[in-house]
Amino acid sequence: MLVNIKKNILIVGLGLLGGSYAKGLKRYGFRITAITKEQSSIDYAIENGIIDEGSTFPDERLIKDADIIIFALYPHVFVEWIKEYGKHIKKGALITDVTGVKVPIVDEIQSLLPEGAEFVPAHPMAGREVSGVENSTEEIFKGANYIVTPTDKNTEEGIEACCEIGRLLGFGEISVISPKEHDEMIGFLSQLTHCIAVSLMTCNHNEQIERFTGDSFRDLTRIAKINDEMWSELFLANKEKLLKQMELFEEQFKKLKKTLENDDCEEMRKIMQASTKRRKKFDKEL
Amino acid sequence: MLVNIKKNILIVGLGLLGGSYAKGLKRYGFRITAITKEQSSIDYAIENGIIDEGSTFPDERLIKDADIIIFALYPHVFVEWIKEYGKHIKKGALITDVTGVKVPIVDEIQSLLPEGAEFVPAHPMAGREVSGVENSTEEIFKGANYIVTPTDKNTEEGIEACCEIGRLLGFGEISVISPKEHDEMIGFLSQLTHCIAVSLMTCNHNEQIERFTGDSFRDLTRIAKINDEMWSELFLANKEKLLKQMELFEEQFKKLKKTLENDDCEEMRKIMQASTKRRKKFDKEL
Repeated sequence: MLVNIKKNILIVGLGLLGGSYAKGLKRYGFRITAITKEQSSIDYAIENGIIDEGSTFPDERLIKDADIIIFALYPHVFVEWIKEYGKHIKKGALITDVTGVKVPIVDEIQSLLPEGAEFVPAHPMAGREVSGVENSTEEIFKGANYIVTPTDKNTEEGIEACCEIGRLLGFGEISVISPKEHDEMIGFLSQLTHCIAVSLMTCNHNEQIERFTGDSFRDLTRIAKINDEMWSELFLANKEKLLKQMELFEEQFKKLKKTLENDDCEEMRKIMQASTKRRKKFDKEL
Repeated sequence: MLVNIKKNILIVGLGLLGGSYAKGLKRYGFRITAITKEQSSIDYAIENGIIDEGSTFPDERLIKDADIIIFALYPHVFVEWIKEYGKHIKKGALITDVTGVKVPIVDEIQSLLPEGAEFVPAHPMAGREVSGVENSTEEIFKGANYIVTPTDKNTEEGIEACCEIGRLLGFGEISVISPKEHDEMIGFLSQLTHCIAVSLMTCNHNEQIERFTGDSFRDLTRIAKINDEMWSELFLANKEKLLKQMELFEEQFKKLKKTLENDDCEEMRKIMQASTKRRKKFDKEL
């Protein structure tokens, strides 16, 4: 199962990510089709040469013709879609996705698919603060992480083909980990950070602070502008793992607070030194 | 008391901020001198035309000649310095500073100064993650906030002259508020954000996360590389106000966590919507 001999790619959900996939893959000569809610998204994508054909309903022909199908939907919509229309997917098709949680959907999707169609889950860690196909761009993949989270139901060829999609899109690093490892890691790196940003943004109602804000506050709250429909679904889908990460953070915050309460300058500085040391490992290599 | 007829400016503490002040003010033709610990800083600053003269000890002549003195020292060093050498400051001199906390030092400094010398406290909300005069640049003031925090001991002329320094340096906004308002605001916008970044950076020791980190985690922890000597002093100096802000944040974080524990999607989305709405007010106007 090699990506370069595949001809038809179907994208289900033509928003920011779906559109960016379409743009990134069009360069290689694939025929790209899309199924998405809004006719305006399809019109825009066709006019701008992003896709070749599209439909606002799950057109059986488009599904049957697809060699690769990329799902860029909310988790529960993805599962519902497969339940209803998965039967039209052809034998030998590669299915992948962009969903931000894995454990809650991967086994179910794999068990729902018809014989011979393989779902290799993936999470492109890329995005923008704006949405819609109009804002899509393959630039968001540059230097970003692309994580493939297969199960023991996947084949070597399927996993390799899914990795190949990441390489074609221009991701910086491509990794293969288990759905469980993925959800723990994302609970910390992505979901906890959003919880912190939202809490910081809503904990102090003094309007004066708007006048005096500086770069550090802006940096910490950039992601506090949040798509509440999507993120609440992702948080709840990853509930246990996210709660564990929130507790880790709460404990450490309390520990730092205790050093302040006790005027324990020495311990406070130790925590700060550990922070400085660890943060250096996260510097982006540009 | 007008800045433009002042001739001699003395900078005490020629590091990143002191050096940036020197560079920013040199353009206007002031004679700039400096008192700082390291001879190498003075050598560098003279060689690069940043100052005209400097000393590694509190040279009485430099102090006596100064019409404006700018202190860029740690809070306790600033107070000690004034106790010991403040007596040499001439009548009519304007004293200002860059200290990140105000209440704990302002009254004391004002009471220590000789008759006729006026201390107008200021806090330039600008910085870089690097230190030293070698890294100084007046670019850091562009678009940044400059906050003047006078007391009832200050004169209109002194306050205006201090604001004028901010304008000359090219700050984006210049504000006048009380030391107490300043410390509350800075407790939230600057100190709490550093507490959060440090806690996030040190709460999870899984090394795997370094491989998968994305922009949101990097944004939230940029300031987790922290000068522990300076920040521990600033935190402890502003203890009560910072603790109050830490508690506000803890409460809100707990409230968000509770919505997750209770699967209360509706309330979770309300918090996220409030966050999105408020964050929009903080967008930088570029």
